[in-house]
This record gives sequence, structure tokens and C-alpha cells, in this order.
Amino acid sequence: MSRTYTDELRRHVGERVELSGWLHQQRQHSRISFVILRDRGGLAQIVVEEPAVVRTVAPLLPETVLAVEGVVADAPQAPGGVELHDPAITVIAEPREHPPIELRRPQLKEQLPTILDNAPVALRHPRQRAIFEVSAAALAGYRTTLDRLGFTEIQTPKIVGGATESGANVFELDYFGRRAFLAQSPQLYKQMLVGVFERVYETGPVFRAEPHDTPRHLAEYVSLDAEIGFIEDHRTVMGFCREAVVGMLEGVAGRAGTALAQLGIHLPMVPDEIPVLHFADALALIEEGTGEAVTGELDLAPSHERWLGEWALRTYGSEFVFVEGYPMDKRPFYTHPEEGRPEFSASFDLLFRGLELVTGGQRLHRYEDYLRALAERGMSAAPLEGYLQAFRYGMPPHGGFAIGLERFVSRLTGAQNIREATLFPRDLKRLSP
Amino acid sequence: MSRTYTDELRRHVGERVELSGWLHQQRQHSRISFVILRDRGGLAQIVVEEPAVVRTVAPLLPETVLAVEGVVADAPQAPGGVELHDPAITVIAEPREHPPIELRRPQLKEQLPTILDNAPVALRHPRQRAIFEVSAAALAGYRTTLDRLGFTEIQTPKIVGGATESGANVFELDYFGRRAFLAQSPQLYKQMLVGVFERVYETGPVFRAEPHDTPRHLAEYVSLDAEIGFIEDHRTVMGFCREAVVGMLEGVAGRAGTALAQLGIHLPMVPDEIPVLHFADALALIEEGTGEAVTGELDLAPSHERWLGEWALRTYGSEFVFVEGYPMDKRPFYTHPEEGRPEFSASFDLLFRGLELVTGGQRLHRYEDYLRALAERGMSAAPLEGYLQAFRYGMPPHGGFAIGLERFVSRLTGAQNIREATLFPRDLKRLSP
Repeated sequence: MSRTYTDELRRHVGERVELSGWLHQQRQHSRISFVILRDRGGLAQIVVEEPAVVRTVAPLLPETVLAVEGVVADAPQAPGGVELHDPAITVIAEPREHPPIELRRPQLKEQLPTILDNAPVALRHPRQRAIFEVSAAALAGYRTTLDRLGFTEIQTPKIVGGATESGANVFELDYFGRRAFLAQSPQLYKQMLVGVFERVYETGPVFRAEPHDTPRHLAEYVSLDAEIGFIEDHRTVMGFCREAVVGMLEGVAGRAGTALAQLGIHLPMVPDEIPVLHFADALALIEEGTGEAVTGELDLAPSHERWLGEWALRTYGSEFVFVEGYPMDKRPFYTHPEEGRPEFSASFDLLFRGLELVTGGQRLHRYEDYLRALAERGMSAAPLEGYLQAFRYGMPPHGGFAIGLERFVSRLTGAQNIREATLFPRDLKRLSP
Repeated sequence: MSRTYTDELRRHVGERVELSGWLHQQRQHSRISFVILRDRGGLAQIVVEEPAVVRTVAPLLPETVLAVEGVVADAPQAPGGVELHDPAITVIAEPREHPPIELRRPQLKEQLPTILDNAPVALRHPRQRAIFEVSAAALAGYRTTLDRLGFTEIQTPKIVGGATESGANVFELDYFGRRAFLAQSPQLYKQMLVGVFERVYETGPVFRAEPHDTPRHLAEYVSLDAEIGFIEDHRTVMGFCREAVVGMLEGVAGRAGTALAQLGIHLPMVPDEIPVLHFADALALIEEGTGEAVTGELDLAPSHERWLGEWALRTYGSEFVFVEGYPMDKRPFYTHPEEGRPEFSASFDLLFRGLELVTGGQRLHRYEDYLRALAERGMSAAPLEGYLQAFRYGMPPHGGFAIGLERFVSRLTGAQNIREATLFPRDLKRLSP
């Protein structure tokens, strides 16, 4: 008999079917047992009345892997409105002992460190699993959108000869006896490939040897990168960035409806025109609104991002706000200055619910501008020879952005800590499981 | 005026359009110049007759970035059957000098090391670019197929506390003062996540400190991994593997038609039933067919894989052949033995045109079996604690496979060296660009 999933049972009322999955929970009464089976479709209730079967299931531990044949019956009070009657139960695999996480509760009661230490079991909880179904759906939506817009997906090396962003926060590697590094981003490669494909994206891991233990940083995360040639300025990039975020939300709505419902998530609306604030104006607003003296600051503090998030919601009803024109001093060497105000950059951040979700901007595209920018920062051009070759032989105005997948999912699901949206997080302390 | 791409010109005959792109080539006659412009759509010919414009374009170097306004005219002899007349040409960015690679030829004449050293320029050649359009299309086809089959996409850590496959060929890393490694595969994580999602896939980089300089090995490559729970045996996995390969070929056919034509690629047919040979029978066939004494071998040599590829083509008309039942001695600790013949494994390789493309198989799923397998190999269970937790708390029979993306594209495009199908290859000697 071919397998049926728990979320298909409704279509089989009156039929005999075979389910497989994990023993999620059981409640025993004197002569009857209710077994909840979990599979990738969800949960199903099995009613056990036959004394021999009641005796078989009674000693089974949670997480026992089972195959269950039975007849589907309407049962308005059961999960999904159906249950399985008259079951024949086969044990496929037995756990060694009671699991260290109580999966039967509607929400896990354990603290985050315990959940992360026991990830292989904790992730089996329907709510935990749902978070990563949202993540997969968002990723699929990102790719679908950029594919539609004529982007080419690329795969660039994670082992590199030099730091991509700056010398700080970089993991060092023994590469056949030579020094190498883990790529902090695909920045240099995606720019080079604008010269080949014009529009490129990559979805893959990036590595930051982040020495601080914060709820919003990871040593390894998934970066959704894009880069676009023949742009007008950074505003063109912001337009593509908006499309990508809309696509991710559409992906989630279209592919992860059950997970959304399970998590009680409210999907944000992306306005046709996301409000845009210049960095200088943002500082003025913050100073006026909070009374804090922020003039001359070079970046936004997390509290200021939160304040701007609230401001945008209050003023425009938008959960998203772009801040453009961050001071050049805090931006990497490839950043293009703002037209006419070279102390500011043609770059932007997109804040989502008061947290930086995306960083992007226009890049330099002339070889001479790179030599000058590197010289001004006291950086050597030699380790960047391959990268600079792209600009040496003709590159159009271009720019791009990077979206942190775990940050997006954290914000969407209301997670307090980015680790909640990461299957197996890596940080200062955590290298396993 | 909004931009038009070269592959859209046919729809605009008689209209004035704006193209942008790179100066691919120019041929000058006394009073007329033919400029070939390259963009992400392809090539277009621009006919320059106005003396002032002829003088403007004459000194331009190849790879100059241009915007060209002109009128589209039928021209059966030109590429794409159209050309641009009466052009106004604007220089967007100038290269510093003649590029080190001659992009105007139908095929690059340079040797592979020169091409790789100058990848940022060499990849701009339409044929080079086409290879990676095939690659992106194959990847998209893989994901589409597994999405349809109910798989969940996962993202697992590339920085790990212990070797995943074996202690050999692993890159070591300084992780905040601790020893860590780059994941040789997502093997352990994809298995753990079968306990969560039942069917998972990942497309991402894997790392092998491959000490040999061969045309088929890389230090970093893209692995298309899948893992499936509730299988019957490794034959179930082979069925999914076939679906994945069919999906990749459909992706290429559907999304990379122009690239295929450019490369002159013949897409293979995947038979409904890919021929399957047991390892023991394969050895017997090879011995009979070649006269070589191979009895007692534990693996297939590259020459034997080639021989089997030819045999399958000759005998079944198939460019694909499965070899199953490789000896347990050469397979990793998590391998499930063959039912009734425990010296052989319930694993398989898929050969494509005489080269191993996929490795897969059924895995152990009982906690006790893992403890025994590790003890027999003299391996310690302690570094695998997190992994073993999945089996400690109930895991169904499962198995999976991994497809090397660069190998697939190499075979498909007839590349002699896997580096030809890798944007920026990493090997014993190569760490840049």
C-alpha cells in the first residue's frame, strides 16, 4: 500500500490508508489510546481500541518511528477534522530513551541554548520546523523574482586569497600550506560577473569572524546577493531590492501557507514606494524626535534604526524604510560617492521593522577611481589584481545589495534572536551540532 | 529612452532603440565601420557611416562600454538578421588598454591556464558565458524538480567541528582560537534533517583539500545534495536520483536554449529505466571485456568507468548507467550494507558518459548500528555526538545522493577539464582570481 501523508487524510475518509511518521504524543485511558503521529504533512490522531494494539503502543517512547494502517473517519474534534480507526501499527525504529526535548507541547518550553544544543530533536517540533519552511519559501521567492528579471545565478568561491570587505572579522585557513580566507561576501566576484552577465545573484554562505556575542550576528549566515549593471544610480538598485523583498514575501505566502498559519505570522505589505530618508535627514529627525545629540554620527545605532522603523510606520504606515547616503567614511572602498556631495555615499540600507535587513548601493566602476580609493585608504592594489582586471577592461555603472536570509526570517517570525532562524548556528561559542 | 537588448531587436525593425553593452569587435573600411556590440542578450551589428561617428569609434578599444541609439533594419547577413543604422554612440566607460584575451574570435585560442588567470575578461566571451548559463539552468531544474517532489531546501553550516566524510582531505580553520574544519559535504546535516522534514535538499559549496592535480577534482565545488526518509532501500534513492537528473536536463532545455545552440550541445536522453549493474557483475564484465584482471578490486578506476559507459551505450543505448553494491570497505561509516551480502553496500554511483556523476545510497538508521560501525572502524563516537542524537531518538530508513554540478556541466558541454565549468576554480595551485 502506498503511503499517505497526514495532510491528505481528509481526501480519504472511509478508506484504508497507510501513514508513516513519528509517535508525537500518546494519551492512554483504561481501554483506549489516542496516538498522535507526526509526518512532514503535520499531525494525525489515531484511535486505538483493540486490546492487543493498546498493549503494543502503551510502552512506546515518543519519537518511535511507526507505520500505521487504518481507516480514515470524520472527527470534527481531532486535528485536521479526521482520525484513523482500527489501526494496525508496525514499529520501524525505536528511540533509545525519552528525548531530551518535550516535543508534545504546543510551544517548546526549553530555553534557546538547550534547544540549540539538541537541534536534531528540537527542530522536529512543528513550530520550529515551520520557521525553516518559511525560510525555504522566502529563498525560492527570491530566486523566482530575480530569474524573472533576467538575472543569472552564479556560484563564486568561498575560499579566497584576500579579505573581501576589510581585514577585520575574517576567518583564516590553511590552504595547502598557504594562507587563505573565508569569503566575507561574494562582493568582489559578483561585481566582476556584472561584466559577464550584467545581472547576477547568488544565494550562499558568507563568513564573519564576529567577535561579539549579540542576538543579531552569526559567524556564518546565508546571504542573498544581487548585482546589476547599467544602472542610473543607487536608486535603480533600490528598485530591484524592493522587487526582491516583494518576491520573498510572495514566495512565503504562496509556498508556506501552513507554516504561516502555524506561526501566526502577519505578512507585511511592501508599499509601492518604500519611504526613503537621507542619512543626514534621518539624523536630524532622530535628534528632533529623541532629544539625543546625534549630529556627526557616521552610522545608525540599533536604537536609532528602531526609532526610524517606528517613525516610518507612524508616518507612512510602512514597515520598511530606506536610508540612503550613509557617510563615505564608514563604507567599504568600492562604494560610489553621492553625486555632488562626496562626503555621502550612493548607498543605502533597508530597515525592516526597525532592523537593517539589506545593505546596498552603487559601486565605483572606473579603474582609476579604484586606484584612488585604495590609495586614500592606504590599501594595496596587488591582492585585488584579479578584481581590478574587470574594471581595467570596461565596466558599466553598477550596484547591488545583500539580504541576510536569517535576519529576514527572524523579523518575519518575530524571533528575538537570529539563532532561532538558523538550523545550526555558528557563533563565538557554538561550533556544534 | 528605455534600454533594448540585442536579442529583442527583431521585434523593433523600423524603430529607433537604445542598446548598451561592450564593444566586442569592429571592422573598419575607408568610409564605413561595422561595430559589434555585446550585451547579455548576445551580439548586434551597428553600421556606422556618418564620418563624425566613424572618427569617434575608430580609436575605441575592445571592451569599451557603450550606449548606442539607432534604427533597427532588416539585414539577413548580420547576426540575428538585423542591424542598427544611423547610430548615435556614447562612451560609458573606457578600458585602460587592449584586453589580454581576444574575445572577438568564435572560440578562445588561449590555453586554459591563461583563460583562468584572466577569468574576469575571458568569461565575457559568449561561449564561456554560455557554459555558466547552462549551469544556472541545470541548478534551477534540480530545485524545481525536488520542490515538486515535496523536498524542503536546507542551509547547513560549512564550518564544522569535525570531518564529515573522513579525516583526510579536510581544510583546517582557526575558529576563534579553536580548531574547526570546512565541511566536505552536508552529509551529516542532511541526514539529521530527514528527522525533521523527511525530504531535504541543499545546493551549496563543499570543500576537499584534494592533494592531486587532476582534470576532474576541485578543492571547492558545488554539491547538489538530497536525502530522503522512509525509503524501501537504495533503489528508492536511485529513483529520486533519476528524477533529479531528468529535472536538470529539462531545466537546461527550457531555460538555456540559446546557450545550448551556441555550444552545439546534444542533450542526452535519460531512459525510463537507467541500466543497473552490480559492482561484482561490473568487474566480471570489465575482466571479460578488457582482459584486465580486476577481481578483488574495491573501486572502479577511471578507465573502468569509461569502459562501462561505452558498454552501456553499446548495449542499452544509454549514456547513463548505475553501478550498485560497491564493497563496504571503500564506503564511509554511515553506509548501509546490502541485504544478505554484507560485504557489499546498499550504495550506488551514477556514471554519465563514463564518469562518476552521482554517489548515493542507503544509510544506517539505527543508533546501535552506528555505534558498531564506528567501533569497527576505530572511530570515536564523541565528535559525532550531535549527529548521533538524531538516531538516538528515532530515524526512519533513509538514503540520499550528491551530484557534482561542475561535473555535470563538464560532461554535458564536453569539457576536458572540470575547471572549464567552474567560474573561479580552486585547486592545489589556484587561489585567485
